[in-house]
Amino acid sequence: MALIFNKACIIGVGLIGGSLARAVKENSLVGEVSGYSRHEEQLKLAFELGVIDRYSTNLAEAVTGCDLIVLATPLKAMPSILQMLVGLVNDDVVITDVGSAKRGVIKAVENAFGGIPAGFVAGHPIAGTEKSGVEASFAELYQDRCVILTPTQETDTQAVEKVSQLWQGAGAEVVVMTADHHDEVLAATSHVPHVLAFSLVDTLAKMQEHNEIFKFAAGGFRDFTRISSSDPQMWRDISLENGDAILSVLNRFQQSIDELKQAIQKQDGQSIEAIYRRAKQARDEHVIN
Amino acid sequence: MALIFNKACIIGVGLIGGSLARAVKENSLVGEVSGYSRHEEQLKLAFELGVIDRYSTNLAEAVTGCDLIVLATPLKAMPSILQMLVGLVNDDVVITDVGSAKRGVIKAVENAFGGIPAGFVAGHPIAGTEKSGVEASFAELYQDRCVILTPTQETDTQAVEKVSQLWQGAGAEVVVMTADHHDEVLAATSHVPHVLAFSLVDTLAKMQEHNEIFKFAAGGFRDFTRISSSDPQMWRDISLENGDAILSVLNRFQQSIDELKQAIQKQDGQSIEAIYRRAKQARDEHVIN
Repeated sequence: MALIFNKACIIGVGLIGGSLARAVKENSLVGEVSGYSRHEEQLKLAFELGVIDRYSTNLAEAVTGCDLIVLATPLKAMPSILQMLVGLVNDDVVITDVGSAKRGVIKAVENAFGGIPAGFVAGHPIAGTEKSGVEASFAELYQDRCVILTPTQETDTQAVEKVSQLWQGAGAEVVVMTADHHDEVLAATSHVPHVLAFSLVDTLAKMQEHNEIFKFAAGGFRDFTRISSSDPQMWRDISLENGDAILSVLNRFQQSIDELKQAIQKQDGQSIEAIYRRAKQARDEHVIN
Repeated sequence: MALIFNKACIIGVGLIGGSLARAVKENSLVGEVSGYSRHEEQLKLAFELGVIDRYSTNLAEAVTGCDLIVLATPLKAMPSILQMLVGLVNDDVVITDVGSAKRGVIKAVENAFGGIPAGFVAGHPIAGTEKSGVEASFAELYQDRCVILTPTQETDTQAVEKVSQLWQGAGAEVVVMTADHHDEVLAATSHVPHVLAFSLVDTLAKMQEHNEIFKFAAGGFRDFTRISSSDPQMWRDISLENGDAILSVLNRFQQSIDELKQAIQKQDGQSIEAIYRRAKQARDEHVIN
C-alpha cells in the first residue's frame, strides 16, 4: 500500500493519539510520525515505546515538513494549540482532530484561522477505553470501529478522502455527517450515559452507608458504572463543549424517568413492562454485546 | 461433608433455581432435589439436563417428604404458591426464597400463613445474568457471590444457620440484615441501575433516528445498557414490589442530575469535574472490575 501521508505530527500522544500513531506505523500509512506535547515525559515515554519516531516540545519544530497534523489533545487544549499553529502550516497541510464534540472544535478553528482552512477535516473516532495515557495505547484500538468525519462546506474533498483512507487503513469504518448531527448522536450514545453513570455513582457515594452499598453491587452494576471510571477532566471538557445537546437528551430522559415514576406510584405494571420490553427489544436488535 | 438437607423441592426451576439445584447436587449438600413448576416442559427440560432428580406439576406431590422448600419463581407468583403451601408443610420444614425484594415476600408469607413460620428464612442471592431459563443455569453461579438473608424476629436461628450453610456450600458469602435495609441497598445498586438502563434505551429508541443512533454506540454504551436486555416481566415485578425504595433513590438521583444540568448550563467546569472525580474515586475504590 502506498503512503497516504509522508510526515505526520500527532499533537497530544495519549491513548487516542498514541494508538493512531501505532496503527499508521504498523500499517505503513505514513512515512514518519513526530509527536508534540507540552509534557516532555509523555513524549519521551511515547518515543521509548516506539509509538513515535521523533518528538519536540517546540511546536514549530514538531510540525516542520509535515503534510498531516492530528490534534489529539484534550478538547480544552485545542483552541490554544490552534492559535499556535496559525502561520506554522501551509494551505496544503491536512489538519484533523479526534475531539468528542465537533461544533466546538470547528468554532475554535474558525476563531484561530479566521475561517476554516480547506485542509481541516474535523473527525472523531468512536473508540477508547476507560484508561488513558500513551502506555494504554495499542494499534488495534480502531479495528472495526466507526470514525465520524464532519467536514464543513469549506473543506477540500481530497483532504476528506485522504483522512478517510488513513482511518480505513487503521481498520476503521468512516462515516461522514454534519457536526450538528454528530454532536446530537454522540450526546445520546456516549455523553449522556457517561453523565448518568458518574452522577449515579456520586449519588450512591453520598448515601451514608456507601461502603456497604458497593459491597452488594453485582455484575450488572459493575457493567453499568464502568464508564464512571473514565477521566474526569476529559468528561468535564466534553460536558462543557457539548452542553446543549447533552442537556437536550437529559431533558428527554428525565421525562421518561418521570413517566416511569408515575407508573411505579400507580402500580401500573402494564406501562412499566411496556417500557422495559421496548428497551430490551431495541438493545437486542441494535447493539451487539 | 454431611448432607444439610435430605430432600429439597425447588419451586420454579429457571436460571436461579436451576443453578442452586445444580450447585447443591454437585456439592452433595442435599440428598434429593425435586422440582415443581406450572410449566411441565420446563420441568422436563430440567430433569433431562440432570438439574433435578424428579419433578411433579402437583405441588403436594413435589414437596412430600421435603425438609427444604426453595421458592425460586418470579416474585409475582410467590403469593399464590405460598397460599398453596399452607397445610402441605410441617412446622419443621425450612422454607426459603430467592426474591429480589424482601419486604413484599415476607408480607406474602404473613398473609398466607397468618404469621411468619419459624422455618421461613427470606433470602436473596446477589447473582444472575441477563439470561433466564433452566438452560442458562450453571452450578458456579453463586461462587464468590453474596447471599443476603433477612430473617424476621419469628425466624428460628437454626433454620437461618442451615440456609446459610447451604449457600456457603454453593460457594457464596452469606450476610444477614433486615428486609428494610436489604430493599434500600438493592434499590441503589441493582434496581435503579436497571430502571435507568431500560429507560435510557427506550428514550433513545423513541428518538427518530434510532437505528442510526445505536450504530454509533461504542463499548461504553454496550456495557452501560447490557442490563436493559434483562427479562422485562421480572423487572416489572421488582419495580412494583420494591417501588418505595426505588422511588426514593430515583428522587435523590434526579436531584443530582438537576445539579449537574445547572453546572452545565452555567459552564461551571469546577463543579462538573468535582462530581466526576468523586464518582471515579468511589468506583475505583469500591467496585472490582
